[in-house]
Amino acid sequence: MEAQAAIGATDDGGLHRLALSDADKAVRDWFVEQLEYLGVTVRIDEFGNIFGRREGTDPTAAPVLAGSHLDSQPHGGIFDGQLGVISALELLRTLEEKDINTRRPIEVVNWTNEEGSRFQPGLQGSGVWSGEFDLETEYERTDREGTQLVDELERIGYRGDVPAEPREEYDAYFELHIEQGPYLEAKEKDVGIVTGIVGLSWGKVTFYGSADHAGGTPMHLRTDALVPAAELIVNIRRLPSTLGERTVGTVGSMDVQPDSINIIPETVSVTWDVRDPSDDVIERAINQLTADAKAAATREGIDYEVDETVHTSSVRFDDRCVDAVQQAADTLGYDSMQMLSGGAHDASHMAPVCDTAMVFAVSEEGKSHTPEEYTSWDDCYRAANTLANAVVATAEPTER
Amino acid sequence: MEAQAAIGATDDGGLHRLALSDADKAVRDWFVEQLEYLGVTVRIDEFGNIFGRREGTDPTAAPVLAGSHLDSQPHGGIFDGQLGVISALELLRTLEEKDINTRRPIEVVNWTNEEGSRFQPGLQGSGVWSGEFDLETEYERTDREGTQLVDELERIGYRGDVPAEPREEYDAYFELHIEQGPYLEAKEKDVGIVTGIVGLSWGKVTFYGSADHAGGTPMHLRTDALVPAAELIVNIRRLPSTLGERTVGTVGSMDVQPDSINIIPETVSVTWDVRDPSDDVIERAINQLTADAKAAATREGIDYEVDETVHTSSVRFDDRCVDAVQQAADTLGYDSMQMLSGGAHDASHMAPVCDTAMVFAVSEEGKSHTPEEYTSWDDCYRAANTLANAVVATAEPTER
Repeated sequence: MEAQAAIGATDDGGLHRLALSDADKAVRDWFVEQLEYLGVTVRIDEFGNIFGRREGTDPTAAPVLAGSHLDSQPHGGIFDGQLGVISALELLRTLEEKDINTRRPIEVVNWTNEEGSRFQPGLQGSGVWSGEFDLETEYERTDREGTQLVDELERIGYRGDVPAEPREEYDAYFELHIEQGPYLEAKEKDVGIVTGIVGLSWGKVTFYGSADHAGGTPMHLRTDALVPAAELIVNIRRLPSTLGERTVGTVGSMDVQPDSINIIPETVSVTWDVRDPSDDVIERAINQLTADAKAAATREGIDYEVDETVHTSSVRFDDRCVDAVQQAADTLGYDSMQMLSGGAHDASHMAPVCDTAMVFAVSEEGKSHTPEEYTSWDDCYRAANTLANAVVATAEPTER
Repeated sequence: MEAQAAIGATDDGGLHRLALSDADKAVRDWFVEQLEYLGVTVRIDEFGNIFGRREGTDPTAAPVLAGSHLDSQPHGGIFDGQLGVISALELLRTLEEKDINTRRPIEVVNWTNEEGSRFQPGLQGSGVWSGEFDLETEYERTDREGTQLVDELERIGYRGDVPAEPREEYDAYFELHIEQGPYLEAKEKDVGIVTGIVGLSWGKVTFYGSADHAGGTPMHLRTDALVPAAELIVNIRRLPSTLGERTVGTVGSMDVQPDSINIIPETVSVTWDVRDPSDDVIERAINQLTADAKAAATREGIDYEVDETVHTSSVRFDDRCVDAVQQAADTLGYDSMQMLSGGAHDASHMAPVCDTAMVFAVSEEGKSHTPEEYTSWDDCYRAANTLANAVVATAEPTER
């Protein structure tokens, strides 16, 4: 964990390792080196996903896959994604060290661009590999400088020649991730057993006012795009309490034009992020939010637009994999709880491909996407141990 | 007007001529050429303010000054400031053409950086010249690229050698400007007689929350910096109605950090712009706004900061100059109205130096700081004619 955290480290103990940057290349090189040192087979697919495969004793058995992502948010932390990849790597090391064999092959994976900070959308590598996203479309995505993703893949030497798709049928996928929420710490649990992922809607509401002079324009003649946007922000904050116990609604980003202290805002957009375990609740939330946007725009006498950009249904993991994780935690004597993930993960894309489950590690104060993100080494160990036992049990330990 | 509007023109008929840019240099060269062609004495002071002086018949008489500014907002219009300089130039041309002499000298001026878009603060050239601002402090201002103002003055060749201060006592200052508000058009007036400038307060409120994950953080554990900011925006919109008939309050600019769709905003700042003819009302507005910020931050359980950055008292112009403008409009048979300016102008800095007044030209729909800013040539003519007659009357026409 310390070795990977040093690559792209920030002065405040965080990590700035955007997908396909020089730092991402460096950590990929390090990861491949670790895999090669273990003597496992390394494959890099045409979207840069890195697989390390340790063969099983049964050449016809479907493999068990485990992993996450090594890229980070801008000035993020050192655990988000990284802990899942390093734990999977550590599992392979332990099997080698202890000379443990399994019937099924075990593969570990580092998915390309989970974060979606530099190139959108996120969950990109797993999205392409699972067939959810189109390879050529994702190749053509550009960052803010206009650089194409495929050119960056080439530049850092990670446009592999293996097709970005399952080479065979997979038996199961396990992903360890930090919780990025406060529940495990608040309930003093050792580890989380993730039974599914809440549904999510992302979108943007844009209001169109008129850019008049802040000094010369009397209040009653204004059409100010920021006022309805502000009303909508307050409404989105209140929305969850009228819906479900687990509903969350957030405005995280906004754009104000022309953004000058003495000009009335002409065009203002606000993003939304709404999540709930129930797809029906999400639909009601978006309907309410759209009605609120309309009411606010009408009060101001201006036009508006509502645009949903991402909509993912909630995911329910398979009992078989959830049980494997639960059993691992129980066997190890850990105090665990079953829970839903509030964030999307590469596991969201894997669930339709094969049986899937996740392990959550405790996140101190639930902090994430910031250098303050923190999981104690003890909590890292407990989550990694749970992952390892679940994977090995599923891969069926055997005498050679 | 068309000649100056061609220098730094944008495709949509607007003007992008930031202070001390190449376009600003080009229009200054053109302006100096026009003055030299008329045979008047051109002086460029050490802050780049350009003066053209036509002598009067009495070598001991204090001069009358008229002008405004040729710089523009980013993608602004072709009238804001420009019409005042061009009208003053046209006045000199007419005096030459008609061979009219005045007892007092008449000077025209183009003030450096009125807009304050590239280098802050605005009203900079008149501020230095009037003694309100310190020359060395203003020389050291930097733009977003870190370029110092004095270096840009040198680069475009407009760091003159005349001290940036009144060379003698001035008798009066007149400035023609577009209204940048809707009153003249709404009341179907030909021209506005400006009796003063409202007071103004600019500032910024910053809220400090916590950047947690939008998916994993339940609503009741959030400290979201954007929610109190949004409540404050709505409050500032409602504020004027509880204060004065002429009070205006605007949030024009804001900053949201880290500004990511799935991260709860950690730091959010909103600007304020509050104006009123009464300094007392402005003080009450700032007190109310500060209380609102505190209440919103307290509800969210977070810290906040209130920082007033600009505070200018209201200005009441001298009756002598206001009367001269009124008389000029009456003599020309124009339907006029007396009014306050909602915006600050270089005249704000001139009022403490000598008797001052302003002429307002009709602004279609009050639009300004946008390419849609528009004043018909007829309205330009009426305002320029009013300015010319007020200046000449004050300068005392005489036989040589």
